[in-house]
Order: sequence, then C-alpha cells, then structure tokens
Amino acid sequence: MNTMIGTDVVVQIGLVVNDLDKTGRKFADFFGVECPPTCYSGEAEVVKGTYLGKPTNASCHMKFFETPHLQIELIEPDDTPSVWRDFLNEKGEGLHHIAFKVKSADEQIKNLEEKGYPLLQRGLYGDASGQFAYMDTQGDLKLILELLEDFPK
Amino acid sequence: MNTMIGTDVVVQIGLVVNDLDKTGRKFADFFGVECPPTCYSGEAEVVKGTYLGKPTNASCHMKFFETPHLQIELIEPDDTPSVWRDFLNEKGEGLHHIAFKVKSADEQIKNLEEKGYPLLQRGLYGDASGQFAYMDTQGDLKLILELLEDFPK
Repeated sequence: MNTMIGTDVVVQIGLVVNDLDKTGRKFADFFGVECPPTCYSGEAEVVKGTYLGKPTNASCHMKFFETPHLQIELIEPDDTPSVWRDFLNEKGEGLHHIAFKVKSADEQIKNLEEKGYPLLQRGLYGDASGQFAYMDTQGDLKLILELLEDFPK
Repeated sequence: MNTMIGTDVVVQIGLVVNDLDKTGRKFADFFGVECPPTCYSGEAEVVKGTYLGKPTNASCHMKFFETPHLQIELIEPDDTPSVWRDFLNEKGEGLHHIAFKVKSADEQIKNLEEKGYPLLQRGLYGDASGQFAYMDTQGDLKLILELLEDFPK
C-alpha cells in the first residue's frame, strides 16, 4: 500500500444540506430504512475546532446512513463560517467530501501538509473519542478529503 | 432489502474534471499507483445516448481508480451538453455522482421515474455490454444517482 495516507478505503461520503430533516427523510425513503437520529457535532469546549488556522465555534447537525461498505453523512451546518457552511454558500447542497479512516489524524495532517495539502478544519468528535480533519485537496483532487480517527468501519 | 432500487451498495463515485490527464496523475500520486489508461465513452452509434429525452452525441473520456470497495471515476466531458458538461459548467469540477449496480437499468429507470425521479441521461457502454443511466435525484437526495448494469464489482 503506497497511498499517501496509508489507506485507500473510502469509509464515508459526506453531503451538505440546507434541511437535514427533510433530506434525511428522503434518504430514509430511498434506502427503505427508519430515518436515523440527528447528531450534534458537539460543544465548542469539547470539539476544540479550528478553521483555516483559527479557533472556531462552528457546529453542525448530522444524520448517518450505513451502507455495506461506507457511511453516507448528511450535514446541516450552522451559520458560522466552516468547511461545511462555506461550501454550502459557494457551491450549494450536494456531495462535499470523501473520508478515510486513519490511525493518527495528527500524523496524517502533518504528512499531507508536507505534501502541499493544507489543513482546512479540524476538531474532536462530540464525545472527544477521536479527531476529524478536513484537508484541502481541492486543487489537485477536486474534492475535500476528510481524515477520521478511530472510525468504527 | 427495502431500498428503492434493490441495492444499497455504492460501487462508484464519479467526479467531473477539466483536465483528465492532470487530475489523473494527482490521483495516481495520492493512491501510489500507476496512472490508469484513459477510456473513451464510445462511438455515438454504439452508445445510442439520450440526454433530457433527446438523442445525443455527447461523449467523455474517463480514468478509473479501483479502491477496495468502490471505483473512483474521473470524467472529462466533451463540449456537447450532457449530465457531465452541464454540471461542470454550472458547479465546476468535483464530485458528480454516486453509482449503484443494478441487474436491469430499464427496470430501475422505470421504477425511479414512477417515484418521481426522472431520467437525465442514458446510454450503452462503449462495448455495448451494458447500460448506464443517470437519474435526477438532485431535488430530494442532493446528488445525481447513476445506475450501472452488469458492473464488474
């Protein structure tokens, strides 16, 4: 495995949406499942988020749909600038990122930054069990890449 | 399995790009693999494509990256209006669709149309071995859904 981040397994596809409940119901209808509960990204003191190098209180609400090989995440951001809100304002609703599971987000953030891919946003999960990081691979890969630490899949 | 199309396995994520060779090389660098060959969507007489209900000669060139669970497809469309070209012109480069493997595209097109999701574009693969169809699920699911018939995965 010679991939830049030690894995080539896509574990999640994320979309940003304006109305999580509405779009969540449509996905539930499509997959023929119960609409999953809404999760909150977490309190700012727990998340300790940064966006573009500065501390941020940006938060979002999410619903997760489990498919056999990957998770589909729907994200409704709050109004604070973030990797989610800015994308939604600039490009509209839709596919936002693909995510890979990594052992150490710190290590892979450093690794990717050395290769010219800057960190966009990072933070801890709402229960502080691990870290997420969005990397700016948009110039080269035309998508936002997310690193997920201790991801269940 | 109660999903609307009989499957919940995402087999492909597709991106539209302006420069297939350039972006292909960046993906190859990221995954640490040889840059895959470029494929042509096929001659119009073989593809027998339609877009928004009318016959079309629209074509594209593609590169495919195989990851353990799904394929990542890079698409550089020609200038003829298509599900690829119009997205590229309107939203820019980036994530374009997710695809599911189906036994019969005809059957699932009919099925989804009855549920209010119109067909956007369809055609045969370049070797006429099967059919692809892009469905307009953008209003509800905020993404374009592709049906792939006889997909190897």
